[in-house]
Amino acid sequence: MLAPVIFVTRKSHFNAAHKLYNPKWSLEENEAMFGKCANANWHGHNFDLYVTIKGRPSEDTGFVMDLKKLKVLIENEVVVKLDHKNLNLDVPFLKDIFPSVENIAIGIWNILHNQLPEGVKLHKILLYETERNFVEYFGPDTPF
Amino acid sequence: MLAPVIFVTRKSHFNAAHKLYNPKWSLEENEAMFGKCANANWHGHNFDLYVTIKGRPSEDTGFVMDLKKLKVLIENEVVVKLDHKNLNLDVPFLKDIFPSVENIAIGIWNILHNQLPEGVKLHKILLYETERNFVEYFGPDTPF
Amino acid sequence: MLAPVIFVTRKSHFNAAHKLYNPKWSLEENEAMFGKCANANWHGHNFDLYVTIKGRPSEDTGFVMDLKKLKVLIENEVVVKLDHKNLNLDVPFLKDIFPSVENIAIGIWNILHNQLPEGVKLHKILLYETERNFVEYFGPDTPF
Amino acid sequence: MLAPVIFVTRKSHFNAAHKLYNPKWSLEENEAMFGKCANANWHGHNFDLYVTIKGRPSEDTGFVMDLKKLKVLIENEVVVKLDHKNLNLDVPFLKDIFPSVENIAIGIWNILHNQLPEGVKLHKILLYETERNFVEYFGPDTPF
Amino acid sequence: MLAPVIFVTRKSHFNAAHKLYNPKWSLEENEAMFGKCANANWHGHNFDLYVTIKGRPSEDTGFVMDLKKLKVLIENEVVVKLDHKNLNLDVPFLKDIFPSVENIAIGIWNILHNQLPEGVKLHKILLYETERNFVEYFGPDTPF
Amino acid sequence: MLAPVIFVTRKSHFNAAHKLYNPKWSLEENEAMFGKCANANWHGHNFDLYVTIKGRPSEDTGFVMDLKKLKVLIENEVVVKLDHKNLNLDVPFLKDIFPSVENIAIGIWNILHNQLPEGVKLHKILLYETERNFVEYFGPDTPF
Repeated sequence: MLAPVIFVTRKSHFNAAHKLYNPKWSLEENEAMFGKCANANWHGHNFDLYVTIKGRPSEDTGFVMDLKKLKVLIENEVVVKLDHKNLNLDVPFLKDIFPSVENIAIGIWNILHNQLPEGVKLHKILLYETERNFVEYFGPDTPF
Repeated sequence: MLAPVIFVTRKSHFNAAHKLYNPKWSLEENEAMFGKCANANWHGHNFDLYVTIKGRPSEDTGFVMDLKKLKVLIENEVVVKLDHKNLNLDVPFLKDIFPSVENIAIGIWNILHNQLPEGVKLHKILLYETERNFVEYFGPDTPF
Repeated sequence: MLAPVIFVTRKSHFNAAHKLYNPKWSLEENEAMFGKCANANWHGHNFDLYVTIKGRPSEDTGFVMDLKKLKVLIENEVVVKLDHKNLNLDVPFLKDIFPSVENIAIGIWNILHNQLPEGVKLHKILLYETERNFVEYFGPDTPF
Repeated sequence: MLAPVIFVTRKSHFNAAHKLYNPKWSLEENEAMFGKCANANWHGHNFDLYVTIKGRPSEDTGFVMDLKKLKVLIENEVVVKLDHKNLNLDVPFLKDIFPSVENIAIGIWNILHNQLPEGVKLHKILLYETERNFVEYFGPDTPF
Repeated sequence: MLAPVIFVTRKSHFNAAHKLYNPKWSLEENEAMFGKCANANWHGHNFDLYVTIKGRPSEDTGFVMDLKKLKVLIENEVVVKLDHKNLNLDVPFLKDIFPSVENIAIGIWNILHNQLPEGVKLHKILLYETERNFVEYFGPDTPF
Repeated sequence: MLAPVIFVTRKSHFNAAHKLYNPKWSLEENEAMFGKCANANWHGHNFDLYVTIKGRPSEDTGFVMDLKKLKVLIENEVVVKLDHKNLNLDVPFLKDIFPSVENIAIGIWNILHNQLPEGVKLHKILLYETERNFVEYFGPDTPF
């Protein structure tokens, strides 16, 4: 009998700088839309990242996936690309993408979703910009 | 190409008094059901409120919705009506409604769900009464 | 008119010891898979447990379910069986089951899901092993 | 050789209603000073209480004091007097005392400081009114 | 009789960018000392700031100090100067000062310590750079 | 002019098993004193450890001490000795010491206090056994 499907989450974090500034707009338009987030000299955040996978626990290990391997995957494929970086300047996967927390989460999904072992699916990217603002992304097929 | 659908959450809070007391019942019946929550002289809580919306990030801003506007909407339409209030006596949208945390969350949904900009839907009201008790409401069409 | 369906969560906690060790494997195989979690002398955690139910608030009480009764149910049926126990040795409902956090959550679901009052369904078991690792289980019918 | 002195803290919590209102003042004076905290119909909070004692760990138990006994003492002498109460109306030890968080903390100290076993001293009462406002009291001999 | 001395804390927060880079050193020396914190393109944090004052509660109000006034003071004198700023470039009170979390905390003390009302003293500046790193400053007379 | 003295804290964590059991006592005496904490098959906790040092920020770096070095010191000298260990059986520095949270904290102080660089002093060991129970140790000279 197959084990049931369960969801497993691993928390990571990174600290980064960004600004919200649309280069196609004037300074005044940017300040009207983004306020202090448009500061030309940047601001930054401690981001908390929760990656949720789903699958069936192995009979041999009780694990959906070895969390040490998930931790290393998130570290190598996501955290090292973002931690202590400038999200507008330093991150290849965000090149030409507006580094809002929404778009960062979508970018992280796009990196991870096809790197999981067989029998495991990426379910959710949850990204906190502050403890008061966060986003959740479930992949491109999410209905509106 | 349309951007994918993503969920965005904003946290707020308010402090309020209430009691759990059914005026159709005797004192004894109320105390049997609600225990110390029926104290005639009220008790209170720090409520934490998380409002989740969904939509597609704008190409120009990276935002599903300007969070400053969402913050102001929640503040003006919900928080000022509840903060430092008596939930049994002071809140028009809870008049004749039993102020359990369930009913407060449903009332908040009813206020907010049709005040969001085009392309944005209300997804969830999450309301903590204490760190040990909380409710989540996804609207009147939630299947049982 | 029926009240709408809403989700209610109660948080509990327990402290327990376990080890991740497959008795069908050699010590070397166990250490290769489970690392320091295979320590023969055990290790332990503070587990945080969130039980989520769903239902319609009662007109008389505003409650989906009396949370004092839910608290007692969780305490008597789950927490006393796990708190200050050895999850490999002391817990009848985990006998012959590998005590990964996944399998503990599934075991808790199996205990609680048919003990709720009429009109209330178990929705989710959320179990934190650490603040960085947690699982969510929605029952055996969860699609992959 | 004597064991060294160490500090031990136990966390408790209670939910209560209060208002900040000086009966010697007019309504206008109260509203000018206390703003929304003066609402005649009360408001409330989830209070988190941390009681810190100090002493030397016992050679036999490793304990400064049996924390189960400290927990029961705080529960019986403090929490039952405050939980789900109206701090202006229901609490004998706050009678004729303005129920600011400062004065509640001082009142809790006055109850507990002479009820500890020999060899144990009360060190601090830390009381959170919200996660943004809290007070710490170290007893009447604290220098300014 | 004088009321006893008690400590009162108010929490605030700000989000900012900085880098750890000594302009008197070479790039190699900076990277050897500061590692990824020396990234020329900046990184950032969500800073949590706790300001603690001490004094005697007023007989009329139960307050050591009106916390609404303390909140406004911290907002106007500290938070607006730091929130969504670049700590190396945008902050007059950090000009020519290395913006480590230690030096930011000392700078905040220097701004606030002589702006409190009579009968109230600044006691501590507690500043979190991340949940894992924080500093506490009690003023220039702290003994080593 | 010397920089002022400031306190810097680094948070770490470890997960471990222990039991509270005095081998000089009978089983009944142990159960009477320690209750479920005396379970012969062990229980466990996620311990959070905060190490606080004090010193003067360097003019060149703004640091009291390079926190990367402090992190490595805590990791190598403390965390690897405790993480995923049995505190009664596996830890040389706790041999013949009752592994209460008080005694673990004192043991950690004894390891670290003389391994800090010149100009830096160990100030405090803060050790959480659960979020409701924690101890603070300031060294052997703490007055009662």
